[in-house]
Amino acid sequence: MAVKQQMMYEGKAKKVFLTDDPKLVIVDYKDDATAFNGEKKGQIVGKGALNNRIASIFFRLLESKGIPTHYVETLSEREMLVKKVQIVPIELVVRNIAAGSLAKRIGWEEGTILPKVVIEFYYKDDELGDPLINRSHIDVLNLATPEQIADMEEMARQINIHLKAFLADKNLLLVDFKLEFGVDADGNLLLADEISPDTCRFWDADTKEKLDKDRFRRDLGSVEQAYEEIFRRLGGVTQ
Amino acid sequence: MAVKQQMMYEGKAKKVFLTDDPKLVIVDYKDDATAFNGEKKGQIVGKGALNNRIASIFFRLLESKGIPTHYVETLSEREMLVKKVQIVPIELVVRNIAAGSLAKRIGWEEGTILPKVVIEFYYKDDELGDPLINRSHIDVLNLATPEQIADMEEMARQINIHLKAFLADKNLLLVDFKLEFGVDADGNLLLADEISPDTCRFWDADTKEKLDKDRFRRDLGSVEQAYEEIFRRLGGVTQ
Ligand SMILES: Nc1ncnc2c1ncn2[C@@H]1O[C@H](COP(=O)(O)OP(=O)(O)O)[C@@H](O)[C@H]1O
Ligand SMILES: Nc1ncnc2c1ncn2[C@@H]1O[C@H](COP(=O)(O)OP(=O)(O)O)[C@@H](O)[C@H]1O
Ligand SMILES: [Mg+2]
Ligand SMILES: [Mg+2]
Repeated sequence: MAVKQQMMYEGKAKKVFLTDDPKLVIVDYKDDATAFNGEKKGQIVGKGALNNRIASIFFRLLESKGIPTHYVETLSEREMLVKKVQIVPIELVVRNIAAGSLAKRIGWEEGTILPKVVIEFYYKDDELGDPLINRSHIDVLNLATPEQIADMEEMARQINIHLKAFLADKNLLLVDFKLEFGVDADGNLLLADEISPDTCRFWDADTKEKLDKDRFRRDLGSVEQAYEEIFRRLGGVTQ
Repeated sequence: MAVKQQMMYEGKAKKVFLTDDPKLVIVDYKDDATAFNGEKKGQIVGKGALNNRIASIFFRLLESKGIPTHYVETLSEREMLVKKVQIVPIELVVRNIAAGSLAKRIGWEEGTILPKVVIEFYYKDDELGDPLINRSHIDVLNLATPEQIADMEEMARQINIHLKAFLADKNLLLVDFKLEFGVDADGNLLLADEISPDTCRFWDADTKEKLDKDRFRRDLGSVEQAYEEIFRRLGGVTQ
């Protein structure tokens, strides 16, 4: 069993701890919530525990479908054991329905179904505000090789197919989501970070009710309840 | 000789007139200058005539290098006869040195030489503020086919090579430039619009002095003089 050691990194939503195994780290999910590049700050009671459990369900699903992820096991309410990776500083966004910045960028009403899946790359850099970038920016910034980009994009498309089908069964629309990838000690490209209502847009398929971080971003209320509802629909039991 | 008929379109920097030949239009270069998506407005005395002559030099150079352009002939001080095209609503930006929005986007100091040419696509849409887009946005918006995009990108790279060499000879650095393409009546993809200090960044190779629209955008003074200097270096004679 991996023994937790000192904290390696504290991010906006999670802490990452080293362990006695140099190939493994422990991710500790926090209740802290931020939006608009850290301008809006708050807490969502119970979020850490819910996201840890929700992400665990998604990672196990994807592993069962053959997607390589950093997930090893869920250790406790807030703790997840994962393979340590060198994060590729690119956030990959996959979109099925226009919402948020895409709706603004292309001038389509939020909720418009996209005729094709949209894939976007953002430079993971808090100081620059995570700007949209393209392949030629990635090249010049040396963020990833063209092969890594192709692999990340292909994995993202597969992940989208699996998550969409899984969520449709729970009467949820997968509007869009953000992925991070990393390279492990053996040089494998793995899906890393988290998959949760913090990093996805989930809408009720009938009512189109938002069940994700947009409730926090846009002050829609019932934030905790939305995260709980997602966990419940995924088969989780809340006390 | 094509006879000028009614105005078809008045843009921010040019007017476009129909002619008695349905395949030809006349572009009339104005002195009006705008920046920051039309927020800043002004006039640069003599700009229309200078840009018409500067663009004529560039179009003739590119035609001589085998690049298909809309250019037919220079009719008068401000008027250029061109092939009528259906403009592809994408602005293609080619960059050799970090400046302007790229410097901000990737956090590199203005003036940093890019290790590779950066190519960006912007959605030509005034209401949306000409946002940066990628191939998947182009696909979803149906702005161009993947083949057109590949052709535009390849032509842009060739244009960059020819312009850079031509300008180096005049002790000018080609920092970056914006291109528009269009499809003519026979279905050919042509370089259209203009190439001028309005649409390029030109720096003196030694002093790095800006000789382009940035003098207007950033209130650097000597705006007309910069346009005249470019025209003079290209071999033009001003009274
Ligand atoms: N398996 C992993 N190994 C190392 N770092 C990881 C792993 N998974 C995620 N990370 C990184 O840990 C941090 C997670 O914390 P988070 O609060 O989301 O940070 P941020 O504020 O940067 O978004 C992120 O920087 C993420 O890229
Ligand atoms: N050969 C051409 N045929 C038709 N339209 C053209 C041609 N070349 C350029 N245009 C279009 O004419 C307009 C030129 O005017 P401009 O003042 O630059 O407009 P804008 O304000 O849209 O930038 C642009 O919309 C440009 O795309
Ligand atoms: Mg994060
Ligand atoms: Mg224009």
